[in-house]
Amino acid sequence: MKDYNDLALKLHKKNKGKISVNSKVEVKDKDDLSIAYTPGVAMPCREIHDDENKVYDYTSKSNLVAVVSDGSAVLGLGNIGAKASIPVMEGKAILFKEFADVDAFPICLDTNDVDEIVKTVKLMEPVFGGVNLEDISAPRCFEIENKLKAALDIPVFHDDQHGTAIVVAAGIINSLKLAKKDIKELEVVVNGPGSAGIAISKLLISMGVKNIVLCDKDGAVFEGKENMNWAQQEMAKITNKNDERGILKDIICGKDVFIGVSAPNILTKDMVASMKDKAIVFAMANPIPEIMPDKAKEAGVFIIGTGRSDFDNQVNNVLAFPGIFRGALDVRAREINEEMKIAAALAIANTIPDEEISVDNILPKPFDKNVGTNVANAVKEAAIKTGVNRI
Amino acid sequence: MKDYNDLALKLHKKNKGKISVNSKVEVKDKDDLSIAYTPGVAMPCREIHDDENKVYDYTSKSNLVAVVSDGSAVLGLGNIGAKASIPVMEGKAILFKEFADVDAFPICLDTNDVDEIVKTVKLMEPVFGGVNLEDISAPRCFEIENKLKAALDIPVFHDDQHGTAIVVAAGIINSLKLAKKDIKELEVVVNGPGSAGIAISKLLISMGVKNIVLCDKDGAVFEGKENMNWAQQEMAKITNKNDERGILKDIICGKDVFIGVSAPNILTKDMVASMKDKAIVFAMANPIPEIMPDKAKEAGVFIIGTGRSDFDNQVNNVLAFPGIFRGALDVRAREINEEMKIAAALAIANTIPDEEISVDNILPKPFDKNVGTNVANAVKEAAIKTGVNRI
Repeated sequence: MKDYNDLALKLHKKNKGKISVNSKVEVKDKDDLSIAYTPGVAMPCREIHDDENKVYDYTSKSNLVAVVSDGSAVLGLGNIGAKASIPVMEGKAILFKEFADVDAFPICLDTNDVDEIVKTVKLMEPVFGGVNLEDISAPRCFEIENKLKAALDIPVFHDDQHGTAIVVAAGIINSLKLAKKDIKELEVVVNGPGSAGIAISKLLISMGVKNIVLCDKDGAVFEGKENMNWAQQEMAKITNKNDERGILKDIICGKDVFIGVSAPNILTKDMVASMKDKAIVFAMANPIPEIMPDKAKEAGVFIIGTGRSDFDNQVNNVLAFPGIFRGALDVRAREINEEMKIAAALAIANTIPDEEISVDNILPKPFDKNVGTNVANAVKEAAIKTGVNRI
Repeated sequence: MKDYNDLALKLHKKNKGKISVNSKVEVKDKDDLSIAYTPGVAMPCREIHDDENKVYDYTSKSNLVAVVSDGSAVLGLGNIGAKASIPVMEGKAILFKEFADVDAFPICLDTNDVDEIVKTVKLMEPVFGGVNLEDISAPRCFEIENKLKAALDIPVFHDDQHGTAIVVAAGIINSLKLAKKDIKELEVVVNGPGSAGIAISKLLISMGVKNIVLCDKDGAVFEGKENMNWAQQEMAKITNKNDERGILKDIICGKDVFIGVSAPNILTKDMVASMKDKAIVFAMANPIPEIMPDKAKEAGVFIIGTGRSDFDNQVNNVLAFPGIFRGALDVRAREINEEMKIAAALAIANTIPDEEISVDNILPKPFDKNVGTNVANAVKEAAIKTGVNRI
């Protein structure tokens, strides 16, 4: 893997960060000033005051997403705080722009307190058309997301959870086309019951998967297990229907799918070999996956995906979040619901024509220009179908 | 005066607001992605985590200003709320960009509670290099500004107060050159003891004015007067040293300078005629001034300025705030102090060469390209002199 460290430092320093705020209108003379600012600007103010829905017509709200983080779970770096998280949030903002022409602005909050974060985002809701939560540690991220969803009238989407879940789901949809397996018959193990692992499990369940077991480093998650947070306890109730017990090595045996959002090199060749025929493995620990693709192939894996751009089948959230927000913003959606997420997963999967799907090509490439548009259209349609659109 | 209402509505609707968030770097391929985002982006994160001052080197903080409002005193529209205030705050943001290449972002908060506003801005401090408070009603604006100044380590500047004060001060500096009067001997009446009136009085005092009387609609402000808020009570202690009593008509008699931030047409020709020789009048009620320039001239005024762009001597905040923040950001200032404000006023005044100053030309035009640079340089210098610079 290429060493990007030095290049990254230079790029960030030379440009002093990565985002700028620009004007969409000209202000070159007295007339411009009187139209874009006083006295003319009083008119849109009055119109919005009379009918607050017009805020979408006269302000940038209709294309503006807050990228909100408290810096508590940044990349693999942990709780590095708000300031140190800014480069990631600015990065996210420029991906929004590049991949879906969404204006996104970093809101990095100097607190880890759930209610303070919720309150702050609620107070700044007026200017934004959506909220993308990012790099917030579990289980706080679930609580923040739930509370914000209840409090706000704009979409709230925790990308580390749902973006990852949607892209994994897309990968599985295409994998099943090749493996000729039915999603309802699938036996799945998800290793790593954090924010991504839980969201992946939930999305797969809402897509029809019936047999799914979450594992942590002590083994299968089951009802009554000790040392689980409230989110894991909830998952225990809706997963592991056969009450399987044991460590990963025991649980993975005979499974169709392994999904890892856990730690480097924890998956052995023996474990992969113990899986069912046409085994599907998503090993997404970053930068070192749960098993390297070559090893997984030696062990007879059918399909292997990772989080890395230097291997085939990269699970990259950029396939999902830009198009999802594009679609949600275009219909001024009030939320991003389960139907919209599933629509996004299907749209990502279907971006690759069936005849081009292969074991090394189950997910579109990040720079495939069709992905964003396909996802946006599908999400828009699902928003309208479920009635969460404003237009 | 031209009617800009229809043009303003069309402009705002066509462009869906006035601001966009853009990328300063290219993201066109896998390498770009790895440098601007993961895995490379972890490096600037680590650097900032190790030394939080580096947030100025590796993020957009060094050029980013929050334009914060609660929509409680927007233009002449009153408390129209956060959403309806957005067009003004976006307008402010694009002026920052156009006049000083500052990236500014609207933060319109859905609360009028002082402590909630302070808390929210404090929590989002990490990404910003400065805070411009805007259109917040008095006396709450004073409390919010004071508390934020104490809480934040970046400049906090309420433009309705200090921007106006600085430009008025610049106008007075040049007026005095023509009137050949000494600022220390000046007798001043300020009509309208709100945010701007109080800030103007304070700045003039720190520039050497000794005799200044604030008036409200009931007349002179004096110690012990009833129905004053705490900010007015404080002003009563440091103004009206001769304990003058009476309504404006009485107070203005024999004064050198009238400054109005009050209501249309409240200043009569008789009142102007009762002022001292070479009377200076700033009638800044908007859009209808306290007295129209032609009437003031008929009454023998020496210099008349207003807030309007269609008359000479326009007091326009755009002469001040862009350059002030440019200068403050350039040295990563911790605050904008009195010395920096006075330096800004002098820089604005001195932008017009002495030989070009005339009764109809005491303030530079808003689009005079030299103003911003002059102000920025002067503010930078004053910041360094007073030791509030970081670099």
